[in-house]
Amino acid sequence: MDTIYMKKALELAKLGIGYTSPNPLVGAVIVKNNRIIGEGYHAYYGSSHAEINAFDHAKEDVSNATMYVTLEPCSHYGKTPPCAHAIVKKNIKKVVIATTDPNPLVSGKGIQILQDHGIEVITGVLEEESKKMNEIFIKYITTKRPFFILKTAMTLDGKIASYTGNSRWISNESSRKFVHQLRHLVSGIMVGIGTVLKDDPLLTTRLDTKKSLNPTRIIVDTHGRTPLDSKIMQTSKDVKTIIATTNLSDHKKLKAMENMGATIIITPIKEGKVDLPYLLDILGERKIDSILLEGGSTLNYSALNEKVVDKIISFIAPKIIGGSTAKTPIGGEGIPCMKDAILLKNLQVSSFEDDLMIEAYVRKGT
Amino acid sequence: MDTIYMKKALELAKLGIGYTSPNPLVGAVIVKNNRIIGEGYHAYYGSSHAEINAFDHAKEDVSNATMYVTLEPCSHYGKTPPCAHAIVKKNIKKVVIATTDPNPLVSGKGIQILQDHGIEVITGVLEEESKKMNEIFIKYITTKRPFFILKTAMTLDGKIASYTGNSRWISNESSRKFVHQLRHLVSGIMVGIGTVLKDDPLLTTRLDTKKSLNPTRIIVDTHGRTPLDSKIMQTSKDVKTIIATTNLSDHKKLKAMENMGATIIITPIKEGKVDLPYLLDILGERKIDSILLEGGSTLNYSALNEKVVDKIISFIAPKIIGGSTAKTPIGGEGIPCMKDAILLKNLQVSSFEDDLMIEAYVRKGT
Repeated sequence: MDTIYMKKALELAKLGIGYTSPNPLVGAVIVKNNRIIGEGYHAYYGSSHAEINAFDHAKEDVSNATMYVTLEPCSHYGKTPPCAHAIVKKNIKKVVIATTDPNPLVSGKGIQILQDHGIEVITGVLEEESKKMNEIFIKYITTKRPFFILKTAMTLDGKIASYTGNSRWISNESSRKFVHQLRHLVSGIMVGIGTVLKDDPLLTTRLDTKKSLNPTRIIVDTHGRTPLDSKIMQTSKDVKTIIATTNLSDHKKLKAMENMGATIIITPIKEGKVDLPYLLDILGERKIDSILLEGGSTLNYSALNEKVVDKIISFIAPKIIGGSTAKTPIGGEGIPCMKDAILLKNLQVSSFEDDLMIEAYVRKGT
Repeated sequence: MDTIYMKKALELAKLGIGYTSPNPLVGAVIVKNNRIIGEGYHAYYGSSHAEINAFDHAKEDVSNATMYVTLEPCSHYGKTPPCAHAIVKKNIKKVVIATTDPNPLVSGKGIQILQDHGIEVITGVLEEESKKMNEIFIKYITTKRPFFILKTAMTLDGKIASYTGNSRWISNESSRKFVHQLRHLVSGIMVGIGTVLKDDPLLTTRLDTKKSLNPTRIIVDTHGRTPLDSKIMQTSKDVKTIIATTNLSDHKKLKAMENMGATIIITPIKEGKVDLPYLLDILGERKIDSILLEGGSTLNYSALNEKVVDKIISFIAPKIIGGSTAKTPIGGEGIPCMKDAILLKNLQVSSFEDDLMIEAYVRKGT
């Protein structure tokens, strides 16, 4: 029964996807006499926590009930008072938790408060599912750097465009719709200047059924070449926009960008380019907990080479375009020997009509 | 119950994989009083047919039994007498068939004989499975051209080698073992001269558990550049080898190859190269019913561009190698516009440890 109620709590938590950043997704279910008597989730950043939400929505007296919650109840005073205390006050008898708090500073403290007040605590129920759901939060809280997803779309022969540069469209409409779900998931979308110059994208999130907070658009633009009349610059008063650049840019141009609404981040020059690890530290400080890289093959390679990528999402269309000079998802200089290739793990395959989507994680430290 | 017995017949049929060419795979099961009393399959080219084999292995009187057979019983005198007559003689009461004979010259004739003798006939049980199992036979018998499988192995970023040309190994040991199963499945393995010069492959079939008839090795070698000291030439007395070339080759060199055991096929010159459709017609005449193309990216593109490819099998390794100049599975000139890409259908994904294998069929006439 524990897993059934926890599944419900996970489902509730996911309703917050795209709205809670940089907070985690959390869901809670209150159970008494084998019936759910209260449900709650963390709906958006600054709103009440899942546990409090579940209490507020409880249909009857919660004393002596069991609470199922996807993450260890908090023990600190933040925007809201600590949930562990609220649980104690409400006379909850038993708390079942999926994952303990990944934040090393507070991990276990919430559980301690509960146990100190005689509440039975069980942990580790559907732990893997809960960790995967909060992979962004876990990375961010433990490293202060954004969780970094590299997204590509290619033909089955590994091309992101034909030899003439034509790329409309590789993936089908369902896949492209799902990319908007991915954008909704993250707090930052990153592209390189090459993509801006070639495609002039808008990079906003368009969802059919709900409103999205548009993630911050981050343009990696070493020489400050983003055109002032590009769609991104023209909309930078309405949608947060960061130009990540270097002192190789014309400062008057950067000033003009700033006047149009963009935020300028100047990084040191690393091998003639924007210093990506430095940039990610700055973005982390600015509460960007996650980035979807929709870059061209050069920026994709730089990100992998700089070891900042956590996850790869690769759409594969059932098409062959051929061409020995056609571009591939990951370009740049490349790795000379196959034995030194960047290794991926935990591959998962899903499909959007006849497109495949492969999700994989970059193996670290091997 | 029909599908259970037919499944058994399909399983039996598959025991013949790699040995029956250019005959189909066929399995048969005889059922009486809800018990299997006889099983048979076509074991190798020239051996008795599945139906006869099932009769020979029957443990009791087969009169009034039902026969399940994956392919319509034959009606013609070939290497063996017609099975339809044997079924009549054995007093079989009912015959259940997966697919009718795809050969338009004889299709339906076996069924007619059975029905003329009062035997009940049911067709179409597990028809799709049976057709997929005999996709090689169906293509060959209806077109006289070999069923053509293009096999590639790439990294998740679409590379078949690093920018330095290093490609050992992309796919893992399990995948590479399965390639030997694929070789065992076909009657011809094709590579381009580029692969011979780069890798000096042997192209034989090495299976762990059973003996394989080595498929004929076919080298597409427009200018007759296959080295006489290559592994393929050095073993061409033992393993059938065809050099497909043109009059652009030195005839003395071709004579030397012939003396070493290779068969020379000279095709017209098409765009400066071996004429692939012409070559496939010749190979079909020589009873090569199936080809596994393990070519480099140039030959792969030529084959797709010439529309001779039926199926693509693509191994994808969970690795990233990068490199804007690294080779991809399908090279050549390429198709200029994405809307004109070669389309694939019926994608199937399987895995060999952490490698993925994608099987897909080329859409024809669209």
